[in-house]
Amino acid sequence: MTSKKIPRATAKRLPIYYRYLNILLDANKHRVSSTELSQAVQVDSATIRRDFSYFGELGKRGYGYDVEDLLNFFKEILNQDKLTNAALIGVGNLGHALLNFNFHKNSNVRISAAFDVNDSIINTVQSGVPIYSVDDLDQQLRDQQIDVVILSVPSETAQAVTDQIVKVGVRGILNFTPLRLGVPKDVRVQNVDLTNELQTLIYFIDHYNANDEQA
Amino acid sequence: MTSKKIPRATAKRLPIYYRYLNILLDANKHRVSSTELSQAVQVDSATIRRDFSYFGELGKRGYGYDVEDLLNFFKEILNQDKLTNAALIGVGNLGHALLNFNFHKNSNVRISAAFDVNDSIINTVQSGVPIYSVDDLDQQLRDQQIDVVILSVPSETAQAVTDQIVKVGVRGILNFTPLRLGVPKDVRVQNVDLTNELQTLIYFIDHYNANDEQA
Repeated sequence: MTSKKIPRATAKRLPIYYRYLNILLDANKHRVSSTELSQAVQVDSATIRRDFSYFGELGKRGYGYDVEDLLNFFKEILNQDKLTNAALIGVGNLGHALLNFNFHKNSNVRISAAFDVNDSIINTVQSGVPIYSVDDLDQQLRDQQIDVVILSVPSETAQAVTDQIVKVGVRGILNFTPLRLGVPKDVRVQNVDLTNELQTLIYFIDHYNANDEQA
Repeated sequence: MTSKKIPRATAKRLPIYYRYLNILLDANKHRVSSTELSQAVQVDSATIRRDFSYFGELGKRGYGYDVEDLLNFFKEILNQDKLTNAALIGVGNLGHALLNFNFHKNSNVRISAAFDVNDSIINTVQSGVPIYSVDDLDQQLRDQQIDVVILSVPSETAQAVTDQIVKVGVRGILNFTPLRLGVPKDVRVQNVDLTNELQTLIYFIDHYNANDEQA
């Protein structure tokens, strides 16, 4: 089942479904209709049914979905039982916040190492995460078998750091720098460009009737 | 020209072009080919030419683009001369980082007010931004004519705060909570769900050959 290819748009929605189902279960809710689900995750119910259809018969007509069944199902799909260790490179303002940010709540990702050039924080532990010198980057990534990196370094060094970590075998980068990184074809980059998000928002409210086709 | 409708995908790329052109000009570069531009922003050159074509003849065959001309042009499109004041609601870990985060560099957005429930920071100034009590939210948003909000409150209060600020006239929300917000049709929400980004990244590197069709 894990080798089955599903559309990317569907894949992107899976963590959203998963998170919401967790919230439902926490609230002791054991059954959800596709309409309720639709309203909560802001995805129309036809799309939800289509998404779920890739995984076979998940709901029952007139009953809706069993929350726990769905959750167990998505947990398997999303490898939620497998803990992924990620490294954070660049512990400035944003990096600090990301260390504090509770990725681990409702997800199976944990920042297990952070790297910086600042001597005053190297060899300290921040929010439970050890900070290493970037000089130890290659060795630590290899030793800890980390293949996912959260990148929050200054733009000027972003590409050089990327080249370095790709060589060590990193396969996924969550890129918080405004730079568009050049990477080999087998490395995945997910861009989170906060200034860009804000500018796009403002552009859209100035030029479009919002919501007629939201991303 | 500002009323001309361009495709949303194009609109989303405009800030990226704008930012890169600024970097070029800072580096004293006055001319750029579509190939160079393509490599830097990681958008294929056919797409760039198509994007630019919505705005008329911007480049010259065999010369490329004049950086300053392009920059002035995009500045106008993106209303870069008009400063937009935004409010930040929720000054926790992530909120603090967003206050420190330099949105203003290479953008015309400024956080001019922040709101929280925490008495120990209310009426203080953090990173140059005054922190108000959420009790003053309605009045401050009205007085300062703020229609863009950065939302980094706990999930549990996100919808209630949204309902409140929409009533006061907020038209755009940069949503850092994992909650999908319900808003009227004329309000635009841009979601930045960090846990989701990281989970999607991991899902993709586990299930796809990265990069064969990146978002």
